[in-house]
Amino acid sequence: MDIHDLTRELKVKNDSKIVMLVADGLGGLPTQAGGKTELETAWTPNLDALAARGVLGSAIPIAPGISPGSGPGHLALFGYDPLQYVIGRGALEATGIGFELQDGDVAIRCNFCTIDEAGKITDRRAGRIASEESGPLAIRLRQVKIPGIEVFVEPVKEHRFVVVFRGPGLGDRVKDTDPQATGVPPLDPVADDAASQKTAEVAKAFLAQAREILASHPKANFHTMRGFAGKPKLPSYEEVYGLRAAAIAVYPMYKGLARLVGMDIVGQAQTLSEQMDLLEQNWNDYDFFFLHFKYTDSRGEDGDFDAKVEKIEELDASVPRITALKPTVLIVTGDHSTPAYLKGHSWHPVPTLLVSDCCRPDAEAQFGECNCVRGGLGQFEAKYLMTLALANAGRLGKYGA
Amino acid sequence: MDIHDLTRELKVKNDSKIVMLVADGLGGLPTQAGGKTELETAWTPNLDALAARGVLGSAIPIAPGISPGSGPGHLALFGYDPLQYVIGRGALEATGIGFELQDGDVAIRCNFCTIDEAGKITDRRAGRIASEESGPLAIRLRQVKIPGIEVFVEPVKEHRFVVVFRGPGLGDRVKDTDPQATGVPPLDPVADDAASQKTAEVAKAFLAQAREILASHPKANFHTMRGFAGKPKLPSYEEVYGLRAAAIAVYPMYKGLARLVGMDIVGQAQTLSEQMDLLEQNWNDYDFFFLHFKYTDSRGEDGDFDAKVEKIEELDASVPRITALKPTVLIVTGDHSTPAYLKGHSWHPVPTLLVSDCCRPDAEAQFGECNCVRGGLGQFEAKYLMTLALANAGRLGKYGA
Repeated sequence: MDIHDLTRELKVKNDSKIVMLVADGLGGLPTQAGGKTELETAWTPNLDALAARGVLGSAIPIAPGISPGSGPGHLALFGYDPLQYVIGRGALEATGIGFELQDGDVAIRCNFCTIDEAGKITDRRAGRIASEESGPLAIRLRQVKIPGIEVFVEPVKEHRFVVVFRGPGLGDRVKDTDPQATGVPPLDPVADDAASQKTAEVAKAFLAQAREILASHPKANFHTMRGFAGKPKLPSYEEVYGLRAAAIAVYPMYKGLARLVGMDIVGQAQTLSEQMDLLEQNWNDYDFFFLHFKYTDSRGEDGDFDAKVEKIEELDASVPRITALKPTVLIVTGDHSTPAYLKGHSWHPVPTLLVSDCCRPDAEAQFGECNCVRGGLGQFEAKYLMTLALANAGRLGKYGA
Repeated sequence: MDIHDLTRELKVKNDSKIVMLVADGLGGLPTQAGGKTELETAWTPNLDALAARGVLGSAIPIAPGISPGSGPGHLALFGYDPLQYVIGRGALEATGIGFELQDGDVAIRCNFCTIDEAGKITDRRAGRIASEESGPLAIRLRQVKIPGIEVFVEPVKEHRFVVVFRGPGLGDRVKDTDPQATGVPPLDPVADDAASQKTAEVAKAFLAQAREILASHPKANFHTMRGFAGKPKLPSYEEVYGLRAAAIAVYPMYKGLARLVGMDIVGQAQTLSEQMDLLEQNWNDYDFFFLHFKYTDSRGEDGDFDAKVEKIEELDASVPRITALKPTVLIVTGDHSTPAYLKGHSWHPVPTLLVSDCCRPDAEAQFGECNCVRGGLGQFEAKYLMTLALANAGRLGKYGA
């Protein structure tokens, strides 16, 4: 079942306001037996007050045991089945640096590499060349000209950069040129279907010119191409939910993901306080606000338990600025767990709270993983958070008579 | 979604060890209002210690309210959607007696019956003839010869036996010959598709010879054929999970089910203690160990609450031999519930515990049904137990970037 078949049919417009506050990588783990998680350790009087009024639950982003990347994690929160809607690697990389893909574009993740005189790869990542060197080198590749095709080259980080082809008739089913091994030459780009034949030709032409441009560089004399992908086709928030949605995020990746589902990207906040300013300033113009807080994930990835606790407390301190606006529905959740103990994304369910005047409160009065296990939302698939949000906002009619 | 599409893509190899201890029919019921279940009644200090360190949950083998047989119950635990992968009746019967089906075989459940002089069935189960009499009678049917076909006849129990045809071009879509009524003759075996035409002819030939061989027997002068089925096509543990898996079971049915998913059947244990010996002896050669304990189910089927409690305590006493090996992930669960109160398999969720260094502990410290309801795994589909096991063993990469 596609949940959007239901929401399209049942959606109702009204003046309600929904705020979804996403603390990236919110869920955690204790670091020792009998210990508490980051969220349970943090002093969070404001979130606890919401927990007491609201309903808690544990969100499963993809499926039990599956650790999500940022793309599928956010698609699930936005209500898009992350196993049905797949964002290709190239498209995600372009999205992550804020490149606005258009329909028909083909985005490609590229890696600088080194090849020997026989053309065989000696280092697939060009020694993880520093961004200071690789950035200008990527920009030098903008010299590549291909008749009838608009070509974009954007630096990413270290050995990584993005190439986007724009022009008519470009399919995105082209095989990677990275042979995943050294001592062999890079592969030619080969189309997997007729519609991608032209893309493979364009890629081949790009590589030929790039080879000349890079030939004399001592650290990165060639590059590979991977993850050819067009702009994912996602129905918009307006279409599936009837929501005018605004995204207030600091990092390009999350702005990009929001843009893919038709949210407006609001402002250029650099801090949580600036994000709250934008929320206040735009309050009357939108029905739905996606607020993204990155640093819970970052500190989790660092493996820094105490710093993640601090970031959660910083987030908690900003909650009164949201509640002061009296949103009809306020959700606090994460796109996945990032326990400092694991230094990375994990599969553990994500602590989630939802507050509205018509939520059914449970017996829990603190926002923490153990409380969420006992919460009224139970353990649920994250993709249903949006229907819960709409329902609590009075924005979904009855199914069947 | 086929969960194996994910595990195939995301699986990672490492040196971790996973143990899945299956207490058949583990879940139970109180026998009086306010009472405790068998598991809650049993003194289980070792399982309780695991519960305190680990995470609990309630596994639903098939769907709420659906009581599973042993086949689908185990398929779910092994991570194979039991509604997608169906083991035909004949194949399950053959598997249950330890017959190793090969690709292309057709297995058939047969019932001895009695027919009158007009050829009409008078008793569909031959008065549930005793195994002592039916066994030799089944073996007498090995006299049947069919050109070009290898024929196997294996006694099962009472009126039941198994016939397997082996030869080229045998489809398994043949209708039952049991008319499900007395006073009418058995039906002819009729093929449902062209590929099974030959099988129907072979079955007809078998029945004609069997009729002669059995004609003079006073208690069972004919038989019916039901549940024609080939060897189920299940992808292997190695292929879908990257696991070298060993099954340590006493009963043929569970060895057979494990063999269907590509596990090695290790040793010939007759007791739990011998099973633990085998676990220790084979510890270095496998990544995954399926340990099957039958007697919780048997005593439940008997309706003997106290005896089931004892069997659970016996199992608990063996747990230290497992934990001494320091498995990366230890799971204790059942394939279904078998409450003594119901004297049979039931639909009730199965108490389940999972322990690893990176599981997220819940607030529960005893292994019992009520604790499992409040556990951190929540109520979950049993088919996801394997992804949880793999994740906790560090054997699954991230989904999407």
